[in-house]
Amino acid sequence: MKRLVLKFGGTSVGTVEKIKKVANIIKKRHSEGNEIIVVVSAMSGATNELVKKSNLISKNFDEKELDSLLSSGEQVSSSLLSGAILDLGIKARSWLGWQIPILTNDNHNSSQIIKIKTDEILGFISNGGVAVIAGFQGISMENRITTLGRGGSDLSAVAIAKFFQTDSCEIYTDVEGVLTTDPAINDKAKKIDKISYEEMLEMASLGAKVMQPSAVQSSMIDNIPIHVRSTFSEKSGTKIISESEIDHKKAVTGIAYSKNNAKVSIVGVVDKPGVAADVFEPIGKNNINIDMVIQNTSLDGKTANITFTIKEEDLKKTLDLIEKNKQKINYNKVTHDDKLAKVSIIGAGMIASPGVTHKMFRALADEKINILAISTSEIKISVLVREDLIQKAVKVLHKTFELN
Amino acid sequence: MKRLVLKFGGTSVGTVEKIKKVANIIKKRHSEGNEIIVVVSAMSGATNELVKKSNLISKNFDEKELDSLLSSGEQVSSSLLSGAILDLGIKARSWLGWQIPILTNDNHNSSQIIKIKTDEILGFISNGGVAVIAGFQGISMENRITTLGRGGSDLSAVAIAKFFQTDSCEIYTDVEGVLTTDPAINDKAKKIDKISYEEMLEMASLGAKVMQPSAVQSSMIDNIPIHVRSTFSEKSGTKIISESEIDHKKAVTGIAYSKNNAKVSIVGVVDKPGVAADVFEPIGKNNINIDMVIQNTSLDGKTANITFTIKEEDLKKTLDLIEKNKQKINYNKVTHDDKLAKVSIIGAGMIASPGVTHKMFRALADEKINILAISTSEIKISVLVREDLIQKAVKVLHKTFELN
Repeated sequence: MKRLVLKFGGTSVGTVEKIKKVANIIKKRHSEGNEIIVVVSAMSGATNELVKKSNLISKNFDEKELDSLLSSGEQVSSSLLSGAILDLGIKARSWLGWQIPILTNDNHNSSQIIKIKTDEILGFISNGGVAVIAGFQGISMENRITTLGRGGSDLSAVAIAKFFQTDSCEIYTDVEGVLTTDPAINDKAKKIDKISYEEMLEMASLGAKVMQPSAVQSSMIDNIPIHVRSTFSEKSGTKIISESEIDHKKAVTGIAYSKNNAKVSIVGVVDKPGVAADVFEPIGKNNINIDMVIQNTSLDGKTANITFTIKEEDLKKTLDLIEKNKQKINYNKVTHDDKLAKVSIIGAGMIASPGVTHKMFRALADEKINILAISTSEIKISVLVREDLIQKAVKVLHKTFELN
Repeated sequence: MKRLVLKFGGTSVGTVEKIKKVANIIKKRHSEGNEIIVVVSAMSGATNELVKKSNLISKNFDEKELDSLLSSGEQVSSSLLSGAILDLGIKARSWLGWQIPILTNDNHNSSQIIKIKTDEILGFISNGGVAVIAGFQGISMENRITTLGRGGSDLSAVAIAKFFQTDSCEIYTDVEGVLTTDPAINDKAKKIDKISYEEMLEMASLGAKVMQPSAVQSSMIDNIPIHVRSTFSEKSGTKIISESEIDHKKAVTGIAYSKNNAKVSIVGVVDKPGVAADVFEPIGKNNINIDMVIQNTSLDGKTANITFTIKEEDLKKTLDLIEKNKQKINYNKVTHDDKLAKVSIIGAGMIASPGVTHKMFRALADEKINILAISTSEIKISVLVREDLIQKAVKVLHKTFELN
């Protein structure tokens, strides 16, 4: 007998019909003799609808009331799903965050799980019951409802897998698994059978929307194997597991991209210790995320150019902050560019494959795609290109690294 | 300083705009120096929408899961309203049934309130905060969410007024108060300024939809003065108070009616002790509500006719049950009639006004309205008439008893 966490996302429970379908999947897995804990998201669209209402009420809606509001979405889906399982003649019941309880800190809207009480639910599932837990929510020490942030049901599932020491954690979603790239821009995209936590983290952070980066990180820390699979097909999906369990045959596992990037270059900065701090301190203090950073010294060796990328929406504020700190930073001029995209190749296998960098740049050059900036990590190379070249770039890289 | 319960129904918080309007009403009452406890229903339509979903999932949806499902409606409205009050710069917070807690028994879908803990909320309102309580819901000893039945937010408001010993309980709704009759069938209907609990109970039970009968009953038992008033006008509404505080100038206070009644007559029943029990026992055991009952002996003194009314929807089942028990009951034949209505005049003043009965029957006779059955109580006379005569009957009685 295995103990399983089955997590169903919003699109999997988006209608009454789909909820009944999910109940049948659960019935099948239950009949195989497994102990089942289900984690469920709000019906697709429900959370957005509630957020919209709160925005119409106040531009600055209270974060504690927002958590109480938003958690109702999973309350609806968890009770409907429980009712559907019961209707199939299987013992089931729903648990809300506060009923278990799932204790979190009081960082409302993006709380972290501290502890999950397990005895009541363990008793229930060991007696053949299916426990249906409302995802995304918990309760603070102050007895207020908390939520884990957008996509937080993935985090709930991973934490529940950890505290209940389950044998696996299956993330049911509306795609067949993690793909080598976005099928919307490259129809050659293929399902990845196995991917390491580290690779998945890069893929997720760079725009693959299958699983929340923080949930991937959390599963990595506690070494919880994840199986991302489709609600609408019985095929095996993508297993997210330890690097050590994967035999990398290819240098590159997947290709991700992100849009709406902007690039800022500060030209002719006097090159002295602390200059980067002078540039980035006011930007960071304004909650603007800096992504790639490149610094190079000019030919005379006395001044440097600092280039970095940010989200397009933060461009105006960033330029204002640099202008305001002109005297302190002491630079010659500032240039900027928007409508840029970051395209990344990701693969733990590239550590053992020399020449990946060269191969990537050559492939892009052959397509006349100009690289505006480069950043690398052990398992990732990212380049900045013009946004209208994304598709061309992804396609040539997908082919070059034998993912087609 | 007064301590007030202000209860807002579903139509009062049916849209984001209306929620903002309600927040402004609360702000005004708060600025007058009152301690405010708000009770709120689900946004209009929300509960029906959830019930519909549960019915699509199962014809026999689990009652505990249904309570968890339905209580989400008040969770949404209470947090939105709290957010709207906070946005006006007033300290506020929402409380769900389990957070207070409002302890109920475990009669899911129609639970009774046992106890409400008051200390946390008393501390909050005595420090100038507005407490917003989700109506309709509580929590059982088993830590499951319970609900109080349809219209249960009125019950919540009355119970909260009792446990918090408030000075008054104001029921805000979408009409200006309790009217002398249904304005949809008589445009001469007028607002009643004061009505006794007993009269209101009859009015509510007989179809005036302003307040749930069980909530009226509950306020009567604990002698809690109710003020039914409009969310959309500042005018005073209807005060529901003790009979002793009302100076009845008129014999009749209001006229109510109910549709979809059916009448069953069992003719030629052998008149012996226990025969009525033999008739009604099987019907009662099948959860069919019997309303009016008339028994009269035939001329020979050996047999009796028993006539009673039920809801139209229960007619078929009732006839089947009588047929099934034919031998035991021992009767000659059964006749029945449907599409009937009950029209009632209600007024504590009729105790002191002889001739009301006569006046009523004369008025109906003058309009050629045939009376099919009669039942009376100390403060009410009901007659059964054909459903298509409701409007005519209500209009003539409204005029006859000087309510125009």
